[in-house]
Amino acid sequence: MALIVQKFGGTSVGSVERIEHVADKVASFRRHGHDVVVVVSAMSGETNRLIGLAQAIQEHPTPRELDVLVATGEQVTTALLCMALHKREVAARSYNGGQVRILTDDAHTKARIQHIDDHNMRTDLDAGRVVVVAGFQGVDEHGNITTLGRGGSDTTAVALAAALKADECQIYTDVDGVYTTDPRVVDGARRLEKITFEEMLEMASMGSKVLQIRAVEFAGKYAVPLRVLSSFEEGPGTLITLEEDTGMEAPAIAGIAFNRDEAKLTVLGVPDTPGVAYQILGPIGEANIEVDVILQNIGEQAKTDFTFTVARGDLARAEAILRDTAAALSASEVRADPRIAKVSVVGVGMRSHAGVASRMFKALAEVGVNIQMISTSEIKISVIIEEKYLELAVRTLHSAFELDVEPEDQTAKAV
Amino acid sequence: MALIVQKFGGTSVGSVERIEHVADKVASFRRHGHDVVVVVSAMSGETNRLIGLAQAIQEHPTPRELDVLVATGEQVTTALLCMALHKREVAARSYNGGQVRILTDDAHTKARIQHIDDHNMRTDLDAGRVVVVAGFQGVDEHGNITTLGRGGSDTTAVALAAALKADECQIYTDVDGVYTTDPRVVDGARRLEKITFEEMLEMASMGSKVLQIRAVEFAGKYAVPLRVLSSFEEGPGTLITLEEDTGMEAPAIAGIAFNRDEAKLTVLGVPDTPGVAYQILGPIGEANIEVDVILQNIGEQAKTDFTFTVARGDLARAEAILRDTAAALSASEVRADPRIAKVSVVGVGMRSHAGVASRMFKALAEVGVNIQMISTSEIKISVIIEEKYLELAVRTLHSAFELDVEPEDQTAKAV
Repeated sequence: MALIVQKFGGTSVGSVERIEHVADKVASFRRHGHDVVVVVSAMSGETNRLIGLAQAIQEHPTPRELDVLVATGEQVTTALLCMALHKREVAARSYNGGQVRILTDDAHTKARIQHIDDHNMRTDLDAGRVVVVAGFQGVDEHGNITTLGRGGSDTTAVALAAALKADECQIYTDVDGVYTTDPRVVDGARRLEKITFEEMLEMASMGSKVLQIRAVEFAGKYAVPLRVLSSFEEGPGTLITLEEDTGMEAPAIAGIAFNRDEAKLTVLGVPDTPGVAYQILGPIGEANIEVDVILQNIGEQAKTDFTFTVARGDLARAEAILRDTAAALSASEVRADPRIAKVSVVGVGMRSHAGVASRMFKALAEVGVNIQMISTSEIKISVIIEEKYLELAVRTLHSAFELDVEPEDQTAKAV
Repeated sequence: MALIVQKFGGTSVGSVERIEHVADKVASFRRHGHDVVVVVSAMSGETNRLIGLAQAIQEHPTPRELDVLVATGEQVTTALLCMALHKREVAARSYNGGQVRILTDDAHTKARIQHIDDHNMRTDLDAGRVVVVAGFQGVDEHGNITTLGRGGSDTTAVALAAALKADECQIYTDVDGVYTTDPRVVDGARRLEKITFEEMLEMASMGSKVLQIRAVEFAGKYAVPLRVLSSFEEGPGTLITLEEDTGMEAPAIAGIAFNRDEAKLTVLGVPDTPGVAYQILGPIGEANIEVDVILQNIGEQAKTDFTFTVARGDLARAEAILRDTAAALSASEVRADPRIAKVSVVGVGMRSHAGVASRMFKALAEVGVNIQMISTSEIKISVIIEEKYLELAVRTLHSAFELDVEPEDQTAKAV
């Protein structure tokens, strides 16, 4: 018998019917003898409705009061889910953030969890009750209501699982797991049985929106086994763990991630002197613009070209700053290009498998995709390419790394 | 400079526009230098929407969870009102029941306030902030959310005023005060400047729905000056106080109250023996049916007739019980009559003015209204009449006691 934390997002509890469906799922786990803590989001649409009311009054609502307002959304769901469980003769009790008590700092609308008191939840679990907790919220040390920001319910679930030393934290979503790549782009995209936290972080940071990065980091830090699965279909989902699959035939690559939301800026003919990178990127950083991939070419006559990427929405602002810097450095030209995309192969296996990079570059070359920039980490290789080649590149890499083949089949082939 | 508690009901905060209007009112009081604590209800319709969600899941929702659910309604209003005050550059801070802390017993959906901690509110008031409190709710000693039942926001306001020793508790409603009688029945009905708690209780118990009886009792017990006034129109409203107007020309009668919601039951020919009243009314009381007016006639041959009134909705149940009792007592007949109404003249002045009863009976006799039953208290005389004469009776008594004349005019006339 295990202690399981289950999190259901807004779509999963978006109507009375769906709440009843969630209650069926929870009741079934309970009847199998598991201890269950459920974390719920606000019913879909509710948070936006509340923010709409606030903005009809204040363009930028007071953060403290905005938290008081939106925290009601999750509280409503906890009560309704408990009623649905009671109807199924499953004992259950709702908690808001303050009742648990989930202590946070006082950074309203983006608070961070500092401590979770497990006493009240333990008492209920020991008494055989399901504990239903409002996600996304806590209280500061003075009892003011705080919220954790968008996606905060995932973080709540992981934090509760860590505090309770749960056997597993299950995140129910509208997809049935983590895929080798976006199934809308590659027909053969395949659900992964397992993925490591590190891989998941790289996939998530590339726009694979299944889980909030923060929740994955949190789970990794506290070694909470995390499982992503569907609210609407049966299935084992994808388990996210610390353990790397170290079998002989373990695949080197877990998946192909991509991101269309970047743009490229190049400044040509800047002096190739120490400190020039800082002179160029310093003002960008001060404007709170995040820089992703950076490339410095050696040019002619002690001059260099400097290229970097930013989020597409920051392009205009970054370009204006860069033009000022370029003038100060007597650079010859500034070029902006929003029509790029980033494609990455991700996998902890590449640490021990040589040749992942060359296999990647060869596959792209064979279909005529030109690589503009390259960036690597221990478990990821990313390339910046022209946006129009994105789908082609993703499909090509998915096949090149045999991601459309089940691992068992690979083994069979190897034998 | 006074400390004022202001309560705004659901209609007064029923939309963003109305919340803005309430903020204007509160801001104006604050700018005049008063300390202000505001108690708000849920936006009109919101409580029913939430109960609807609950009942879609459970026919009789679990009381603890129903409280968790509906308490969110008031919390939403507190946040929105604070935002509207901030927009007007008035410092303000919201509180839910647990944050104040309003301690109640654990009778979910009908909890009673046991203690109010004024520490947090005092700190804010001392710092020049308006305190905005969610009405209708509290927490029990274990931190479970409780609600006070329908109309509980009035009770919250009075309880806060008592705890803070406020100079006045203002209840904003959709009427501009307490009237001598229902203006829909009598054109000449007049707003009262002042009324005592006792009179208000008698008026309220007769269906004058301006204030919850419980809040009036509470205010009377703690001597909190209570003012009823309109959210939508300017005006002084009606002040409800302990003090009786003892001037020479103080009117004996404050108003005429009435109630259509009663029905009459008569059992004829029961033995006129000790204990017969208990034998008849005991089973009625055990069925939780409240009895209002009771009349026992002496009949012929040691037999008596016994008549009483109940709420009209209880008539069928009460009649069934009475028929069983009548059979056991060998009574000759049971009669039920839903077509009655109760009309009362109310006024603390009748304690010192003789002749109120005879003036009442004479006036009704002159217009041919037959009195079926009479019931009196120290400050009230009620008669049960045939329902069709109700409006005639009310208009007749309103004139007979000169309630359509302003008190100043009465004085002028007397001089």
